[in-house]
Amino acid sequence: MSKITPRTLQGFDDRHGDEMVIRNYVKDVWEKIFQKFGYSAIETPSLEYCEILTGKYGEEEKLIYHFKDHGDRQVALRYDQTVPLARYVTQHRNLIAFPFKRYEISRVWRADAARKGRRREFYQCDIDIVGTESTMADAEILQVLYEGFKILGLPEHKILLNHRKLISGFVQSLKIPENKEIEVYRAIDKFDKVGILGVEKELKDRGVPQSAIPKIIEFISASEKNNKEMIDELEKLVKGNELGEKGIRELREILEICEFAEIPKETIIISPRLVRGLDYYTDAVFEVVLEGWPGSFAGGGRYAGLCSRFSNENINATGVAVGFEPLCMLIAERKMGPENISPADVFIVLFSNEMKKDVLDLAQKLRKAGLRVQIAYEASKLGKQFQYADKLKIPKVIIMGPDEKKEGICVVKDMGSGEQKEVALGEIVKLFALYR
Amino acid sequence: MSKITPRTLQGFDDRHGDEMVIRNYVKDVWEKIFQKFGYSAIETPSLEYCEILTGKYGEEEKLIYHFKDHGDRQVALRYDQTVPLARYVTQHRNLIAFPFKRYEISRVWRADAARKGRRREFYQCDIDIVGTESTMADAEILQVLYEGFKILGLPEHKILLNHRKLISGFVQSLKIPENKEIEVYRAIDKFDKVGILGVEKELKDRGVPQSAIPKIIEFISASEKNNKEMIDELEKLVKGNELGEKGIRELREILEICEFAEIPKETIIISPRLVRGLDYYTDAVFEVVLEGWPGSFAGGGRYAGLCSRFSNENINATGVAVGFEPLCMLIAERKMGPENISPADVFIVLFSNEMKKDVLDLAQKLRKAGLRVQIAYEASKLGKQFQYADKLKIPKVIIMGPDEKKEGICVVKDMGSGEQKEVALGEIVKLFALYR
Repeated sequence: MSKITPRTLQGFDDRHGDEMVIRNYVKDVWEKIFQKFGYSAIETPSLEYCEILTGKYGEEEKLIYHFKDHGDRQVALRYDQTVPLARYVTQHRNLIAFPFKRYEISRVWRADAARKGRRREFYQCDIDIVGTESTMADAEILQVLYEGFKILGLPEHKILLNHRKLISGFVQSLKIPENKEIEVYRAIDKFDKVGILGVEKELKDRGVPQSAIPKIIEFISASEKNNKEMIDELEKLVKGNELGEKGIRELREILEICEFAEIPKETIIISPRLVRGLDYYTDAVFEVVLEGWPGSFAGGGRYAGLCSRFSNENINATGVAVGFEPLCMLIAERKMGPENISPADVFIVLFSNEMKKDVLDLAQKLRKAGLRVQIAYEASKLGKQFQYADKLKIPKVIIMGPDEKKEGICVVKDMGSGEQKEVALGEIVKLFALYR
Repeated sequence: MSKITPRTLQGFDDRHGDEMVIRNYVKDVWEKIFQKFGYSAIETPSLEYCEILTGKYGEEEKLIYHFKDHGDRQVALRYDQTVPLARYVTQHRNLIAFPFKRYEISRVWRADAARKGRRREFYQCDIDIVGTESTMADAEILQVLYEGFKILGLPEHKILLNHRKLISGFVQSLKIPENKEIEVYRAIDKFDKVGILGVEKELKDRGVPQSAIPKIIEFISASEKNNKEMIDELEKLVKGNELGEKGIRELREILEICEFAEIPKETIIISPRLVRGLDYYTDAVFEVVLEGWPGSFAGGGRYAGLCSRFSNENINATGVAVGFEPLCMLIAERKMGPENISPADVFIVLFSNEMKKDVLDLAQKLRKAGLRVQIAYEASKLGKQFQYADKLKIPKVIIMGPDEKKEGICVVKDMGSGEQKEVALGEIVKLFALYR
C-alpha cells in the first residue's frame, strides 16, 4: 500500500517537548490567578452558525474558516472568544447572575497569512466581567494582569491606560464631524507603526480637518512626569466637555483603586495615544507592554454594547485578552519557564526481570509522595536505560539490583553531575520529597 | 438593526456552571495521574490534511467534518486523537525517544446523529506508550486506569482483559478461513447488545462455518471462578497453537505485573468475549466497566501497526482512551464531584465606597493564603449583595463597615447555616486557611 506523507497544514503546529511544558505552565499561571479572583471557566463550541460570527470583524472577516456541514448549514470555526461570549451571555441571560466573571483559554482559528509568531490555530486567554459599569471592575482587570505578569517573572511590565471617552470628548471639542471620529482613532492607533509624522499623514489622508490636526498631535504627544500631572494636563484639554470629563473622572478612579490594590505606581502609565484598534471599546482601554519587545502582551478595555448584535438590552462589559502566544514565545526565548522540562522527576532502571515487583513498589511509593516517576519496561543494558533517561532529561535515576535489594539500599544517580550515592530504601521517599 | 438569534449548533454545547466544574475536576484528576506516571503532554492540530485522517475509520468516515480551506486544500477536523498521534510519531520520528509516552485531553469532532450523551464536539482523554512490546507497558496502562478510577471514587470498577492473539489462535485452531476471522471478532463484539443467541445468529449471518459456531460460543461463555482458572481453561482451548499460546503467556504476565502493582485481584477480570470493535488491535485489549451502568468508561489495547499508514517501520503501541464524556455524566449524576461548585470560596461585601481600600486589602490577603475571593464592585444594598453571593453559591461572605473597621473586626456569614460571627481582622486569614 502506498504511504501517506505525514505532515501538518501550514499555520497548524504540533506542540510538544519544551514548548508544551512552557505552554502548560503559562496556562496554569493564568488559570490559577483567574480562579483566585473568582472567575468561572466556561467553554463555548469551536463551531458556530456562520451568521453568529460574521458581520462583526470587518475586513478581517475573510479570515474566518467557514463551510457547509452535513446538514447543509453554514458553519464557522470561531475567530475569537468574544463574539461567542456575547452570544453566550444573551442566550443564557436568565441563568446568569451579574456581574458575570468568566475566563476561557482555548483555541481559535484564522486563515491568516502564516508567518513567524502568527499561526492559523492559536490560543486566546480571556477574562471578562459582564454586567457592571463600576470602575472597580476595570481596576480588577489591571490587578489580575499585574499579578499574572509578576508571577511569570515580568514585574517590569507596563500597563498603558487610556479612556475612549477622553479621546472622544477631546475630538468633539475640536468640532470634528461625527463620522470622522473613528478615523481619528484609526490614525492614532497607527502610532506604534508609523510614529508621530505618520499619524499626522494618516489624519490628513483620512480627511480629518486640517485645523484639528496640530491639536490632536499635541494631545497624543503629552508626556508628563507622572500620571497625576498627565491627567491634570489632559483635563485642561477637555474642560467643559461632558464625555471628556467622564473619561478623566474614571481614569482617576481606576488609578486610585489600583493604588489601593498596591499595584506599583510606575506600572500603570496613562497614555493618551492608546486607542486599541477595535471599534467596540467605549470607555477605559489598556494594554500591557514590555520594554524592548515589540507589540503588546495583553490588551483590553470596556465595551458598552457587548450583546448588541443579539439583543436590545444594553450589557456593559470590561475584559482583557492576554497574548498567550507572544507570552509563551517570550518565556521560551528568555528561558523563564520551569527548570525541569522533563516528563518525570525520576527514572527507575529495571536491572533484571526478577526486580519488577521492587521497581513497581518503589515507583508507587514515590508517586504517592507527589513525584512523577517513569520506570523501565525492559531489562535492557543499563547503558541504554541511562541513555533513555538522559534523552528525556530526567534529572535522577534509581538503580536497584538483587545485591542492593539484599542490603536494603538503592543507588541514586544525579544525571546532571553524574554523582551516584547509595541510599537506604527506607530513606528514599524522604530524600526525594526534598526534590519536589 | 435586526438582531441575530443567539443559538448553538445541535451537538455543540456551551459548558458552564456545575458541569464545567465537574469537567475540569475530572480532567485534572487524569492529567495529574498521567503526569505521575511520566506521560508528556502533546497537542496536535484540530485541522489536518483530509488524506491524513481518511481511509482508516471505514463506515464512520462519513462523520468526518471536511471542507476546502482558503488555499483550496481539502482539510478535516480530527475525528480522534489516535490517527493524529500516528501521523505525529512518524513525522517527528527522529526527535522521539522510545518508549514515547504521551497524553492528550482535547476536542474531537464527529457529525454524528445528536442524541443523549452523544455530541458532535466532545473530549477524548488518551494515553499511549509507543515503541515497546513489553507487557510491563500494558500493565502500566491498567495501573493508571485503576489509580484514576480509585481517586475519582469508583474503586468498584472492573477492568475486563483479553488478548487478540488468544482469540485469533483459537479461531485459527477451528480452521476458519482467514478472511472470516474479522467476522468472528465483529460477531463476538456484539455480545453486550445482542446476548449469546444474538452472537450465534451474527456468526451464521456473517458466514462463519456452522461447525465452528458451538465452539466459539463455548469459548466466549467461559466463566471460571477466578482469572487463574479461566486462563488455565482457555489455555486448553488453544493448546499447540502458537498465537493462542502467546496470548495466554502475555495475559499471565500482565496479571502478574498488576499483582506486583497491587491492583486488587477482583478488579481485573479475564473476559474471553472482549474484542474491542476497532480492527487495529493485535494483542492485549481491555475495557473499564461499572456494574449497573451501560457501556464502558475506558477502552484500549495494543496495536502493532500504529504508523502503518505513514511508514513501513513497524511501531508497536499500547494505550487507552478514558471515556471522558460518560465519566463526567456519571460523576454529575452521582454527585461525586467537588463539593464547592462556586467560582469563589468567599465574597467580600462593599459596605460603602470609603471601604474600597479595606476590601481590596483583605481580598488580596486571602488570595495570598490560597483562597478564591470575589469582591463586590458596587456599594449597593447589602441584601442585593448577599443575594448575588447566594446565587453563585459562594459559601462564606465577609462584611466590614466603618464601625467594624474601627473595632478591628469583620463579620463572617456562613451562607449555608446563616450563622454570623465576628472575627478579629488579624485572625481572618488563619480562620479561612481552615476552609481551604
